[in-house]
Amino acid sequence: MESKVMQNELYDFATKIWSYNRSLTGSGVRETLAAIKLEVPTLQTRSYPSGLKVFDWEIPMEWNVNYAYIIDPDGNKICDFSTNNLHLIGYSESIEVDLQLSDLQAHLYSLPEQPDAIPYITSYYEQRWGFCISERQRQKLLEGIYKIRISTSKTMGTLDIGEILIPGADKKEIFLSTYICHPSMANNEISGITVNTFMAKYLAKRSNLRHSYRFVFLPETIGSITYIYHNLKKMKKNIIAGFNVTCIGDERGYSYLPSRARDTLSDKAALHVLENDYHGHKKYSWLDRGSDERQYCAPGIDLPIASLMRTKYGEYPEYHTSLDNLINVVTANGLMGGFDLLRKVIEVLEMNITARPKMLCEPMMSKRHLYPTLSTKSFHSDIRFRMNIISYLDGKKSLLDIANLLGKPIKFLYDEMLTLKEMGVVDF
Amino acid sequence: MESKVMQNELYDFATKIWSYNRSLTGSGVRETLAAIKLEVPTLQTRSYPSGLKVFDWEIPMEWNVNYAYIIDPDGNKICDFSTNNLHLIGYSESIEVDLQLSDLQAHLYSLPEQPDAIPYITSYYEQRWGFCISERQRQKLLEGIYKIRISTSKTMGTLDIGEILIPGADKKEIFLSTYICHPSMANNEISGITVNTFMAKYLAKRSNLRHSYRFVFLPETIGSITYIYHNLKKMKKNIIAGFNVTCIGDERGYSYLPSRARDTLSDKAALHVLENDYHGHKKYSWLDRGSDERQYCAPGIDLPIASLMRTKYGEYPEYHTSLDNLINVVTANGLMGGFDLLRKVIEVLEMNITARPKMLCEPMMSKRHLYPTLSTKSFHSDIRFRMNIISYLDGKKSLLDIANLLGKPIKFLYDEMLTLKEMGVVDF
Amino acid sequence: MESKVMQNELYDFATKIWSYNRSLTGSGVRETLAAIKLEVPTLQTRSYPSGLKVFDWEIPMEWNVNYAYIIDPDGNKICDFSTNNLHLIGYSESIEVDLQLSDLQAHLYSLPEQPDAIPYITSYYEQRWGFCISERQRQKLLEGIYKIRISTSKTMGTLDIGEILIPGADKKEIFLSTYICHPSMANNEISGITVNTFMAKYLAKRSNLRHSYRFVFLPETIGSITYIYHNLKKMKKNIIAGFNVTCIGDERGYSYLPSRARDTLSDKAALHVLENDYHGHKKYSWLDRGSDERQYCAPGIDLPIASLMRTKYGEYPEYHTSLDNLINVVTANGLMGGFDLLRKVIEVLEMNITARPKMLCEPMMSKRHLYPTLSTKSFHSDIRFRMNIISYLDGKKSLLDIANLLGKPIKFLYDEMLTLKEMGVVDF
Repeated sequence: MESKVMQNELYDFATKIWSYNRSLTGSGVRETLAAIKLEVPTLQTRSYPSGLKVFDWEIPMEWNVNYAYIIDPDGNKICDFSTNNLHLIGYSESIEVDLQLSDLQAHLYSLPEQPDAIPYITSYYEQRWGFCISERQRQKLLEGIYKIRISTSKTMGTLDIGEILIPGADKKEIFLSTYICHPSMANNEISGITVNTFMAKYLAKRSNLRHSYRFVFLPETIGSITYIYHNLKKMKKNIIAGFNVTCIGDERGYSYLPSRARDTLSDKAALHVLENDYHGHKKYSWLDRGSDERQYCAPGIDLPIASLMRTKYGEYPEYHTSLDNLINVVTANGLMGGFDLLRKVIEVLEMNITARPKMLCEPMMSKRHLYPTLSTKSFHSDIRFRMNIISYLDGKKSLLDIANLLGKPIKFLYDEMLTLKEMGVVDF
Repeated sequence: MESKVMQNELYDFATKIWSYNRSLTGSGVRETLAAIKLEVPTLQTRSYPSGLKVFDWEIPMEWNVNYAYIIDPDGNKICDFSTNNLHLIGYSESIEVDLQLSDLQAHLYSLPEQPDAIPYITSYYEQRWGFCISERQRQKLLEGIYKIRISTSKTMGTLDIGEILIPGADKKEIFLSTYICHPSMANNEISGITVNTFMAKYLAKRSNLRHSYRFVFLPETIGSITYIYHNLKKMKKNIIAGFNVTCIGDERGYSYLPSRARDTLSDKAALHVLENDYHGHKKYSWLDRGSDERQYCAPGIDLPIASLMRTKYGEYPEYHTSLDNLINVVTANGLMGGFDLLRKVIEVLEMNITARPKMLCEPMMSKRHLYPTLSTKSFHSDIRFRMNIISYLDGKKSLLDIANLLGKPIKFLYDEMLTLKEMGVVDF
Repeated sequence: MESKVMQNELYDFATKIWSYNRSLTGSGVRETLAAIKLEVPTLQTRSYPSGLKVFDWEIPMEWNVNYAYIIDPDGNKICDFSTNNLHLIGYSESIEVDLQLSDLQAHLYSLPEQPDAIPYITSYYEQRWGFCISERQRQKLLEGIYKIRISTSKTMGTLDIGEILIPGADKKEIFLSTYICHPSMANNEISGITVNTFMAKYLAKRSNLRHSYRFVFLPETIGSITYIYHNLKKMKKNIIAGFNVTCIGDERGYSYLPSRARDTLSDKAALHVLENDYHGHKKYSWLDRGSDERQYCAPGIDLPIASLMRTKYGEYPEYHTSLDNLINVVTANGLMGGFDLLRKVIEVLEMNITARPKMLCEPMMSKRHLYPTLSTKSFHSDIRFRMNIISYLDGKKSLLDIANLLGKPIKFLYDEMLTLKEMGVVDF
């Protein structure tokens, strides 16, 4: 029931932010951050000026769109940005010109093999203008004069980043990143924004978090580079695990892409959940990467960031087209599944204590009523399970390591640890 | 021949200590230690008082039995402790009461699925009284009044431990533990007492031991905890390998249970012997443990103790019943096999030197007549074997490591080392 | 074409040195070194006196041969050393005696299973005289008196070693060893001398070597021991990789024998080449060793020396007989193949840089025109390859490690590194 309510909330939020014209910069980014802040008021935003050097990169001019459309020879308005922001290529220049169809063609982008899809195209680093259009519509264009009307601005503005910190008992942080630079596409990227926003909201209500949780919402690549540039020392000190959360709202599967180091706490926690609860999940390699983990795990940055996804970017046909929408690809149920995956991984991290017994040798269990008083031929498997856990509490293995050694979900071990702590047998 | 004499000695000793009423404490334990001392006069006994705190545990009251039996409605004495000490549950209270059969039933223990077996039951940590009886006999009990007569004592007494040290050239110790707390059961436990007693006797006669050997005979769990409590520092300093020796007198197989760390010298030596000489042996996991290795390998204790067994406790149907006797389960031949396994493992430890060549580069073998003087096309495999050993004497690999690298029994390598030492090629 | 010229040069050189009477010492060794010096004038020779103690060994007397033959009962000269130096056993004593055939037999060596082969026999460390003869010829010997005429000398002379250093930018050395102690046999050993001589000549012409290259030409075993005795400290300091080059002139295959440590740079470089370019190559084990790697990798010497071969000594029927010649076994094409294998391994070592990116996070590729400016749905695999390399430049992995991670030949990665260096993205 609660889950039903929640999945509708997720879906409604996704629908709400659908049409904002996100790009590397601009008002669509700020509208998106404002929508998140309505859900999680502790969101902080930070703005970095165009032209700022960040490592090898430079923050670009801020791009905004007033209008963009074409008037066809019959006087119809086509490729109208106000109808679908994918029609205009990202960072398109302004232009006002009348062209023959044959001259227009070089500025049109379509996908012959997906005739109903408007492709998603950007040209951040070279000046261009152009429209994206479905192949089917393009085929119907008649000869004649087309009036091209694009009014955009590139100004010295800002790149905007949102950040939420949910403090826990421990200053060590779990870092959750998603990006906010794609216009109207659902799985890549609205699903990530939605799941992370509601995860922050969910964690903010919990009073007993062991770790702190930091969420960042930033434009892909230039945003994570800007963020790292300003926070690297603190990140290296505090982050013990983290995920790039993306493409997490469809119903087609679950998948995981490792950190570069491959065996960090993030990787272990994700794999523990996937291997215990998600039969048929897909494992990618570091060589399949393609999002902000490229920066978080770059040489010298070396953060333990893996990726959690449902169907990975580039691996579904609707990817980077207008077909990646809230009907074909992303659903309320799909978003809820993504949320649950992330929640389970977070629970593993919360439960991953490193406990020690309070005494040398085995504790005496019968005096604590944790052991039958009558010794017979048989031995209960739950008692054996408990003693097995205790036998591995050497201070080097975390509970997750022990769960994997015993081939059991960490939850079962954690419940035992709570009992054993209450009984004075272990400490953590 | 000698082996035939010896296996009879082993069997006679097992028969002799069969009927002593061993428990955690009491006169049966002391009788057992006295019997061992007759074989190995250097046995030292140590007594620890009831009530002494040892880590999380406390040494229990000393329990002794005067008599225990039931008079049935026909006046027959049944469940007589003096006939079979398994009839009385361990640490039973005294009682003198007459009961209807229906009231007696709650105090009777039998095994419906093994109708001829008297089960072995204890209640160390909760006050109870009761009798163990075969299911077949139980089914024949008639309605009527039963006279229950149990006279036992629980007093402030002692827990008794026996210890034998066989000193070798090296203060480093091989630690051999077995337990002395089960009444009349043969494989679990008389076989362990027997094999360790005669191994101590055997080693005491050898004049050239490289390592020292320490044998302990103690009640399971509370005994090893008490021993560790008083000796931990010394144990951690001196013990380089060791075994819990138990269930080692049957003829059904050979088995091994690793130390918690899994790759200690004990594990390597045991596996070397088993893999070279015992096809079809069984390997258990640490998760199958159930005896004093639980304490020796507990977190913070961390001793390199593995278990050597023939058929493991819990893995044969007669386990913890009156059927685990010197006819059905344990035999003279079975005990001798157990003794031989342990002796072979000890030999491996004795041979496991770490030698160095006395010169850089290969030694010149022909001047020592260890090499043919005529160089032809073929090359003898025994010379190659010798040179292979020398090539691995890097001071990091022990002879056991090299034996495993070469896939040969360590004995073959050790013989070469003796020759090479005599020839002045290596030193150890 | 150039390759055709070169393989003829290799073969001509092999033919030239074919008949020199190489042994542990003597004029044949010096003639061979003189022939090498004609090709590589920077060759240095060093002479060590007979009787010098080198570790456990002693440099033997210098052995030279004036003549050696037998006059058969019919007056024919047979087993004439001047026709084939294999006829005389190595280090044979002088003798002038007339013997009945039956008395001569004990001094004749032949191979019944290879009736046309003259075997190769030596007796370095015990005084003997004797002749090697084909089984076919031996069977035809008639009864009668045979005149044995052997005139050899054993004098206080020298053991001679040749050495070439090709200096590179780095003082760290690649060490290439071959032996010069076998008389007229082609694969074992003329092929090694030939390939190493022409590799030194080839490298001496290159102006841009990263590493230094040291070639040694020495009698097997006693020569390498003598060399190590005088140079160990320097060798341990400078040598980063190296190979014993032997049996490298036939056309039957390619093979590799690891260093004792098995995972040195030498092993990695050799395996990278063999696994990428030589399908069907053969891998031997350290236990199959039989040449100077026995000394270079001995405990306490511990140099990273592996062996590169075509068909390994002992693994082809002509080995250590007169059939191992420049017709049956070694060919111009076979020598060229051996040269190419060694050259490729050297190229891997030259390319095996450890580079770092010059910036944190990913470099911005589009501003350097290393990235398309239009971001579409597809992503070029060559760009991905480039970014994959950069993502692994953590300063710990060498380019060879990264090539193996990516499953590509290092050449492809090295070409990328040159571009990236030129673009200012990486430094090495």
